[in-house]
Amino acid sequence: MARRKKVYEGKAKILYEGPEPGTLIQYFKDDAAQSEQAPNQGTDGKGLEGKGVLNNRLSEFFMAGLNAIGVPTHFMRRLNMREQLVRMAEILPVDVVVRNFAAGEISQRLGIPEGTALPRPIVEYYYKDEKLGSPMVAEEHIVAFGWANQQDLDDMVALALRVNDFLSGVMLGVGVRLMDFRIEVGRIWEGDYMRLIVADEISPDNCRLWDLRGLETPDREGQVREPGPLNDVYTELARRLGVLPSNVTHTTKPTLIN
Amino acid sequence: MARRKKVYEGKAKILYEGPEPGTLIQYFKDDAAQSEQAPNQGTDGKGLEGKGVLNNRLSEFFMAGLNAIGVPTHFMRRLNMREQLVRMAEILPVDVVVRNFAAGEISQRLGIPEGTALPRPIVEYYYKDEKLGSPMVAEEHIVAFGWANQQDLDDMVALALRVNDFLSGVMLGVGVRLMDFRIEVGRIWEGDYMRLIVADEISPDNCRLWDLRGLETPDREGQVREPGPLNDVYTELARRLGVLPSNVTHTTKPTLIN
Repeated sequence: MARRKKVYEGKAKILYEGPEPGTLIQYFKDDAAQSEQAPNQGTDGKGLEGKGVLNNRLSEFFMAGLNAIGVPTHFMRRLNMREQLVRMAEILPVDVVVRNFAAGEISQRLGIPEGTALPRPIVEYYYKDEKLGSPMVAEEHIVAFGWANQQDLDDMVALALRVNDFLSGVMLGVGVRLMDFRIEVGRIWEGDYMRLIVADEISPDNCRLWDLRGLETPDREGQVREPGPLNDVYTELARRLGVLPSNVTHTTKPTLIN
Repeated sequence: MARRKKVYEGKAKILYEGPEPGTLIQYFKDDAAQSEQAPNQGTDGKGLEGKGVLNNRLSEFFMAGLNAIGVPTHFMRRLNMREQLVRMAEILPVDVVVRNFAAGEISQRLGIPEGTALPRPIVEYYYKDEKLGSPMVAEEHIVAFGWANQQDLDDMVALALRVNDFLSGVMLGVGVRLMDFRIEVGRIWEGDYMRLIVADEISPDNCRLWDLRGLETPDREGQVREPGPLNDVYTELARRLGVLPSNVTHTTKPTLIN
């Protein structure tokens, strides 16, 4: 097999040229993306063994599900344990975050206790520049600097809210609360027609997930448990969704994630 | 306790006056609604013992989930095994059906094999008149006869598509495909402001559900199973979603439903 051309390498993934024009191969590494949703992962440069395998499966599950209900994504098909075939897209320089419950960044910035239900889903934009710490920006900045136009923004919001509805549903189905998530959006052309699609991945690296199971039953000290981060999140989510590969039982550093 | 005033009685439910103005108590019987999605149920006048208990739980699960993501429904809270408190709404005389995969009515009318993925979710309206067999109608009829205006229809479609995104997600999370579903829509006023909400119930009585689990593993004859109706649908769905009451193990006539 000829050596494939590497197009991009980030903390969590490598992109290679795909077998056909307009395609890429997305390879999942074990290090976590540097994101608000997975702040404690991959910072020691070692990552969690097996995490890439699970995120490949999980992202396949969510993106194939979105494709099936008509929310366009870059996902075409999974190729093997760590790779999937995706459509090449021009990635917009802003990520979209949707928040259903306060946690992390918004709790700190606005002084809202973690776990507070927000009055409605709140959509935020973050400028993709890791050196600047991916700062939050407003529509005003995005349009003024030409990163996207107003139509793009309207389309991004519509896309992100549909992802939120679907993903909130999937998570609730398996006893998990989708607190917030971040997606990357790309531009593709079909003839003269341009549209925006969900790119990158959807996994615990960019979803903040709290566990809703077992909250009614008091623990040994008689305390009723409050919702909190889902433990061993990659493995546990894959297990609940029925996509845990049979040779994986847990990632090697089971720990509080998110 | 004073005898409550019955407001309405249908095949599957009874509505009583609620404790406060603008509320109703919705009681779940064991007979199934007469719907395309549950054509074989409750026609013998006996129903399935325990079905009402499960639909009360399931509808609570879905409607509370919709309320939480900002899709308004009439659901306020569950009161007991068979009753829930709901907001009183003026029910529109047309139901909305959303179809993701062909089955039942659309397969017969348009000659599309059951199980075929539709090019996009298809929204249909059915005039609520059981004597007429709840006939399908177009927007043209609805506006001409004054059953709803164009703004109502636009709002109904937006509401139904959000329910579809969320509900498709919940179902996929537990290995179930949402083929199609039917909702009832009601009108409520908040001061001068009118809005449309999801009324009635969301349960296997108005959702057509196919099972996606175990399709990869060949059976004893070496045949790979095709997707098909979810067996023992009320109990199985409640079990997968973790809302099966501990005193229910199955409905008394476990059978192919839908």
